[in-house]
Amino acid sequence: MIGGRRPLQGRKIGDRRVRVDRPHSPYFRYTGLDTLSAKESTLAPTSATGRAIERTRRLLFGRRLSSDEEALERLPKKLALPIFSSDAISSSAYAPDEILIALFAGGVVALQFSVEMALAISLMLAVVSTSYRQVCRAYPAGGGAYTVARENLGQVFGLIAAGALMIDYVMTVAVSTASAVAQAYSVWPALYDVRVEVGILSIVIITLGNLRGLRESGNIFALPTYAFLGLALLLIGLGLVRAVTGQLPSAPVPAQVPVPGTEAVTLFLLLRAFAGGSVALTGVEAIANGVPAFKPPESKNAANTLTMMAILLGILFVGFMFLADVMGLRPAVEGGGPTAIAQLGSAIFGDGTPLFVALQIATALILFLAVNTSFNAFPRLAAILAGDGYMPRQFAFRGDRLAFSYGIVILAGIAALLLVVFQGDTHLLIPLYSVGVFVCFTLSQVGMVRHWISGRDSGWWWRSAVNAVGAVLTLTVLIVVASVKFAGGAWLVLVLIPLLVLMFWFIHRQYATSARELALRPDQVIAPPHRAERVVVPISGLSRSVVQAVNVGRTISSDIRAVLVIDDHELATRVREDWARQVPGVALVVVESPYRALTGPFLAYLDVLDQAWTPDREAPITFVVIPEYVPRHWWERILYNQSTNQLRRALLGRPNTVITNVPYRREEPTVFERRGQLDGHEPPGERRS
Amino acid sequence: MIGGRRPLQGRKIGDRRVRVDRPHSPYFRYTGLDTLSAKESTLAPTSATGRAIERTRRLLFGRRLSSDEEALERLPKKLALPIFSSDAISSSAYAPDEILIALFAGGVVALQFSVEMALAISLMLAVVSTSYRQVCRAYPAGGGAYTVARENLGQVFGLIAAGALMIDYVMTVAVSTASAVAQAYSVWPALYDVRVEVGILSIVIITLGNLRGLRESGNIFALPTYAFLGLALLLIGLGLVRAVTGQLPSAPVPAQVPVPGTEAVTLFLLLRAFAGGSVALTGVEAIANGVPAFKPPESKNAANTLTMMAILLGILFVGFMFLADVMGLRPAVEGGGPTAIAQLGSAIFGDGTPLFVALQIATALILFLAVNTSFNAFPRLAAILAGDGYMPRQFAFRGDRLAFSYGIVILAGIAALLLVVFQGDTHLLIPLYSVGVFVCFTLSQVGMVRHWISGRDSGWWWRSAVNAVGAVLTLTVLIVVASVKFAGGAWLVLVLIPLLVLMFWFIHRQYATSARELALRPDQVIAPPHRAERVVVPISGLSRSVVQAVNVGRTISSDIRAVLVIDDHELATRVREDWARQVPGVALVVVESPYRALTGPFLAYLDVLDQAWTPDREAPITFVVIPEYVPRHWWERILYNQSTNQLRRALLGRPNTVITNVPYRREEPTVFERRGQLDGHEPPGERRS
Repeated sequence: MIGGRRPLQGRKIGDRRVRVDRPHSPYFRYTGLDTLSAKESTLAPTSATGRAIERTRRLLFGRRLSSDEEALERLPKKLALPIFSSDAISSSAYAPDEILIALFAGGVVALQFSVEMALAISLMLAVVSTSYRQVCRAYPAGGGAYTVARENLGQVFGLIAAGALMIDYVMTVAVSTASAVAQAYSVWPALYDVRVEVGILSIVIITLGNLRGLRESGNIFALPTYAFLGLALLLIGLGLVRAVTGQLPSAPVPAQVPVPGTEAVTLFLLLRAFAGGSVALTGVEAIANGVPAFKPPESKNAANTLTMMAILLGILFVGFMFLADVMGLRPAVEGGGPTAIAQLGSAIFGDGTPLFVALQIATALILFLAVNTSFNAFPRLAAILAGDGYMPRQFAFRGDRLAFSYGIVILAGIAALLLVVFQGDTHLLIPLYSVGVFVCFTLSQVGMVRHWISGRDSGWWWRSAVNAVGAVLTLTVLIVVASVKFAGGAWLVLVLIPLLVLMFWFIHRQYATSARELALRPDQVIAPPHRAERVVVPISGLSRSVVQAVNVGRTISSDIRAVLVIDDHELATRVREDWARQVPGVALVVVESPYRALTGPFLAYLDVLDQAWTPDREAPITFVVIPEYVPRHWWERILYNQSTNQLRRALLGRPNTVITNVPYRREEPTVFERRGQLDGHEPPGERRS
Repeated sequence: MIGGRRPLQGRKIGDRRVRVDRPHSPYFRYTGLDTLSAKESTLAPTSATGRAIERTRRLLFGRRLSSDEEALERLPKKLALPIFSSDAISSSAYAPDEILIALFAGGVVALQFSVEMALAISLMLAVVSTSYRQVCRAYPAGGGAYTVARENLGQVFGLIAAGALMIDYVMTVAVSTASAVAQAYSVWPALYDVRVEVGILSIVIITLGNLRGLRESGNIFALPTYAFLGLALLLIGLGLVRAVTGQLPSAPVPAQVPVPGTEAVTLFLLLRAFAGGSVALTGVEAIANGVPAFKPPESKNAANTLTMMAILLGILFVGFMFLADVMGLRPAVEGGGPTAIAQLGSAIFGDGTPLFVALQIATALILFLAVNTSFNAFPRLAAILAGDGYMPRQFAFRGDRLAFSYGIVILAGIAALLLVVFQGDTHLLIPLYSVGVFVCFTLSQVGMVRHWISGRDSGWWWRSAVNAVGAVLTLTVLIVVASVKFAGGAWLVLVLIPLLVLMFWFIHRQYATSARELALRPDQVIAPPHRAERVVVPISGLSRSVVQAVNVGRTISSDIRAVLVIDDHELATRVREDWARQVPGVALVVVESPYRALTGPFLAYLDVLDQAWTPDREAPITFVVIPEYVPRHWWERILYNQSTNQLRRALLGRPNTVITNVPYRREEPTVFERRGQLDGHEPPGERRS
């Protein structure tokens, strides 16, 4: 490197060299006077690994979308359907089991109610989806439960909806993962014993993918949904044909023969079955949240897609339940048995056939798609909440990897914990899921009723009536689910939601207080300062990083002194001699620290400097210029700068004090020094080509 | 507060106001030109709680000692004995049990060897303490195993000794705590079931005490040692008198009658008993480490105190074992039985008598004293190692609470973990203890042999012979302990020591590398810099903290611009209008971030600024002046400055860049602003009285 030319320092844009005559072009567009708009290249990864991952990501999912482009890129219905429906449609993979298991507690005789149950839930699906069509119309900018509740019912209900939504996303990850693993062990029973491990591994993979920039942004996501729809409809069609022709085989008897329950078939038992099956409705709200992504006319297209999705989900659900009834299918009450969908598949397609395996794989994939949707929605909700001041502000910068990462890691961690605690059992997880979802439904529908009533647009009375029916229905289900499943886990959600609301409220109060403290009167004009500056450089000896810090200090003020805090007289004398010879013109103060402390004596010295100032003059600003060594690797950090970090924290609380860190980077040892001043190193400059 | 006088800002010294004419006096003494020596007041606590604790601490333990005072304050033998001997003498509380338990595996008949075992170990004690007398003479500055091994046997053996010492300190805490709790449940058996909890609680209390500045520095520490010595000698004396007069009662039969083992009395069984009993020698080295604390002639006084301690320990140990033998005492093999010392005490003093209870309390206290000694020695060793570059540098500043805290918390954490893993069972912990201690003994003695041979002082041959006998003996014990207890936990220590040595070596290599990179040629003279400066202030809006940062930036350079990274056009326009009106003369650049990222676009903008610079001139230093909000409480930190912290980390790796943090403190809102410029707040100045 000595004497040679260096490559461009800082970030590189591919292999292209930056041309000086148009310096802004690779990173920015000019959009006005002193206004630049960042291009995607500003987010380019800097490491080789990062670039390789970025290339793969682009190949699979296309490039990132800016806010403007997101607004411009509209989905045709045939893409919007699979992207927004995976969550809802995938619930047909576990909802049938919920009904069958709940009914089976009343013995084989209770199973005859399964088709009625399916029809009742489909009816509810029809009502709720009709209610949500109205949300699509009323909130063309996207009507999440948080937005609708906050605008119509006020802050508290908005925050309740936000808390319930967060729980909803976590539960979607946990339930869908558990169900996907159940689809897999329905084909390969050996997986049952490692179901928790497999589930956590899946979450880890999806988490890493999302941390590295995997998003729902491409046609690739349409595939599993259409594959699942195709195979499931084929299954139902084939089953119906065989049922008509009388060729439908009876359901296979699972290895562990399920023992029918002996409960009386009471209303309570039927309510429990209904509560269990209501999980089929989870995810129905997704389209209403995403109206702006549709092609114009957005509201109409979204509403029609929603209806389409509800019809498909209804067909799948009722179809599955009808076939299960005809074939006399018995649910795997004990863990480890095949899921209802797997039993149907193996009976109709034939056990072990490629079609059956394909059905199971497609089911698992659409479930993972639902998981991935939550990984997207969670940080987006956090960003909206952060924008409104209810979450820490850093969540608002969604594009920064770190901000995004917090949300992803929290989501994945809690979901994985739930998988472990509930031993990967879908059936045990579902009570927690339904409560959160129906809280959102109810708040959203009640909010809509208020919306129509206060707006009084044409048709407001029948519109509000539709939402009122939806509200009553979802509230009823909520009460049913919360009461029949209370001991089974629903209580946890009912405790968590108020805690989350308290947290949001607390954060909001904090920000409000600090905003008040920081506010400027709008008519105040700020003039340049007239304060003097003083520079103090804490050092531990004489080194290149100290020289660098001292030279930075000299550019700030000529009132500069280095301070050596030390408990070794001899070493102090040696440093003083070297200093006088090598850094002429800069005072060195030695603070002996016989109690072997660094921070206390240094702070006290600064106070002494301030006290020497006469009281009727304004005290100068003290710049504490701290030399810092930048280690090559993150794990080396514990070896460096710990004492100065401590000093930095202590100085944060000190009046009239500014902290300047001068990082010393090994790759560029001559910064801040005179050209060629330090031998053996290349002079600075001549860096840009 | 408005218009009134403020009290002195920053740290206060009691209630005294600082007089401006002698500003240095409360904190510093002048010790030379530009040289100050910090007084203890620089370490004064700033919070009310801190001051209350400090007053209590002073009352109990007297004031802190500086390095100079530590060197001056010499202990008379009558204080040095209890302070340095607690570790060694307290081992007589658990060593007898070790011998008895090991022998009891061979049945009652094997117990007859117990007195012989005690005599053998006392003989070894005599040899080892004689060897250590020589260390006192050779290393008047303190001869820890690390020092002796490093100076005479080289770096590797020094580091092995250091690793073994660290393990030794951890094990002292674990074993002494477990034994102290065992002394307590010997009196109150109900404590047995909560022994782990009680042990951890004790460690937590001692940890908090040490974090708050409890040190071994006062007469208070002499009390438990003398109490224990007095009661134990009384016990032995009374026992002997009764034995001679034939009035000695036979040992009480514990509630759980111990079942004698059925092993043959082989050499292996006897070796195991010897290995167990050798734990009596732990702590013997303490005096040799602390020679400089003795009154002159230091070496002679230390050596005599050492002999005194060895004689006392020998008397206690042999006395206990003799009485146990005469009374036919059977050890509590199963956990929960009374300790040997408790059995003797309850038989001789009478069960439940005040004397018996006092004996048990004194025993527990001297054990906790040994624990506290480790809490002191561990950070001191870490400081020595840090000074030699084998531990992270921050450990070298012992006087700073944080540096000290790391060591204390690590020590307490590992010891508590061991208590949990070994279920608070002294007997199970001791194998790990003995190995570490005897590694230190052996290295120390071998080092002394080399010391005498290379020095060839008068009498070198007989001196080296004494240490050689010690070395052979301790090495033999080490081999015996390591082999007979290998599976019982000794293997862990034999794995840990090399790992610690590797860690020390790795840290040393890192520091050596960075020191080379940072080195200056001694003849290089550093001239003032001639680099231009440029200031960039990243802002998120217009607020008091931003105004403050901008004004600090203006004192650095007139080439200043504020940069607003934002993804909201409207907000950007509004900020621009306010900015133009309220902060005239400072350019505002808006960087629109359609990908909702902060760091990437900001860094790219800095690169664009650099590229605009013509390549043949040196690029200016970029000062990134970051407004920072200082929250009132630590738990508020997550709400503030997270994005800027991320920015800060990213900037550390950027060439030509200096990071300046301008903290905004609510208590002092007008710093860096023009006097009276912002209404509603008191003008700055007039702060010192």
